[in-house]
Amino acid sequence: MYYGEDLRPEGAWKRVLLTLEYDGTDYVGWQTQMNGRGVQQEVEEALQKATGVYTPVCGASRTDAGVHAAGQRAHFDTKSRIPCDKYPFVFNSLLPPDISVVKADFVHPALHARFSAEGKRYTYRIDNGRQASALRRRFYAHVPLPLDVERMQAAADELVGTHDFSAFCAAGGSAKTTVRTLKTVTVERNHSEVLIKVEGNAFLYNMVRIIAGTLSAIGTGKMSGEVIRMALTSGNRRLLGPTAPACGLELTKVYYEGGL
Amino acid sequence: MYYGEDLRPEGAWKRVLLTLEYDGTDYVGWQTQMNGRGVQQEVEEALQKATGVYTPVCGASRTDAGVHAAGQRAHFDTKSRIPCDKYPFVFNSLLPPDISVVKADFVHPALHARFSAEGKRYTYRIDNGRQASALRRRFYAHVPLPLDVERMQAAADELVGTHDFSAFCAAGGSAKTTVRTLKTVTVERNHSEVLIKVEGNAFLYNMVRIIAGTLSAIGTGKMSGEVIRMALTSGNRRLLGPTAPACGLELTKVYYEGGL
Repeated sequence: MYYGEDLRPEGAWKRVLLTLEYDGTDYVGWQTQMNGRGVQQEVEEALQKATGVYTPVCGASRTDAGVHAAGQRAHFDTKSRIPCDKYPFVFNSLLPPDISVVKADFVHPALHARFSAEGKRYTYRIDNGRQASALRRRFYAHVPLPLDVERMQAAADELVGTHDFSAFCAAGGSAKTTVRTLKTVTVERNHSEVLIKVEGNAFLYNMVRIIAGTLSAIGTGKMSGEVIRMALTSGNRRLLGPTAPACGLELTKVYYEGGL
Repeated sequence: MYYGEDLRPEGAWKRVLLTLEYDGTDYVGWQTQMNGRGVQQEVEEALQKATGVYTPVCGASRTDAGVHAAGQRAHFDTKSRIPCDKYPFVFNSLLPPDISVVKADFVHPALHARFSAEGKRYTYRIDNGRQASALRRRFYAHVPLPLDVERMQAAADELVGTHDFSAFCAAGGSAKTTVRTLKTVTVERNHSEVLIKVEGNAFLYNMVRIIAGTLSAIGTGKMSGEVIRMALTSGNRRLLGPTAPACGLELTKVYYEGGL
């Protein structure tokens, strides 16, 4: 599926898969909304400047306003003659500094950034110092009460596997089914930082932020760890904790067949 | 020297020593300049709101525009009855989110944040990925060419000890002597990140940034490691590399007698 280098004639249609990083603080999300600019629009405008042609770019995940990415993926089709390994330089000379293209691959035209994704990994970062750190504020949510990481991990273990996650879905989601499979949910502490890492096949609207908000409430002792099982059984959103702030969330990696 | 808790009568003069963090990106430095706001002014305004009285705040280090701090220290004298352990909450409810007070201590009135400092530690962060990372851009300088960390460390070792660092001082410094003592200079790599950590008794204007710029030029092979010794001997600034960008620099810690 992955050609590694471009062996096709110049000027033919090629599908390019980008790996992108962004600091989502100043964007309304991946998609442009009525209230502001999205990351996608910046990428499309850079591509138009580089190639002279408007080309739609399709992202793997429609990250929300304020959510970051270390490994967003996005594809587009182009007849441009830009060599594969030059795309990062071309994009990064045209993109604002809070978005960067890490890598570009020529891929099979059947590979779709969103629909071919086999899984995703998210990282939720909590600043668990008593005072909110000025240095972490863009990438962390602040929880001043001490978090019991073992208690959080025990509750997180209940999430692993295939479940109906309808309780973990904010209003506004459009998924046909609310059954999802989580491969791993880990909670770890490094000094005053607590990281929640979630890997699964697909995610509902706000699912990781509801997981993070609920695990935080369990970690501070405000909620019982039992709520996870009760919510998975009943589908009742109100049993769970609040949706954690967007700033703590990062789309870390998107997985495709063949390890692309 | 450190009382630990306030045992003195309420309303008496007390000297408070703050430990501060800040993201220096949007400030002209610690001190307010004609071209913009300094961190000191924000701290003084917050203190005035809290106590009702304008009180000057004296910082340990006058960090430059764009330079960050994880452990800036600053003192002030006040008759306020705010208990020592409440200062972080009071300040952080009034300061902008890119400045935070981590800790406050009541100290002996002879302790001066700047003149009593026995040493300082700085961290210079380099993003050594081929493409500049959007997530690191506020706290890292980007060096796209691969850095040879062993070569940098060998050159850094030449800086350790007591030397006349006049070659490592930008025009505009006002120090009476240019003799300084560096205790340690270490260069380490974590994946695509290279960290330069410098600890010394005191620093000349732009000294750490000239060290970082020179070690980077040595690390990419643009300069010989010999330049350090030649510059220390001759005092010639032009033998050294460029002043590295402010965004990579962080004042990490200020040391006082008694381990305060």
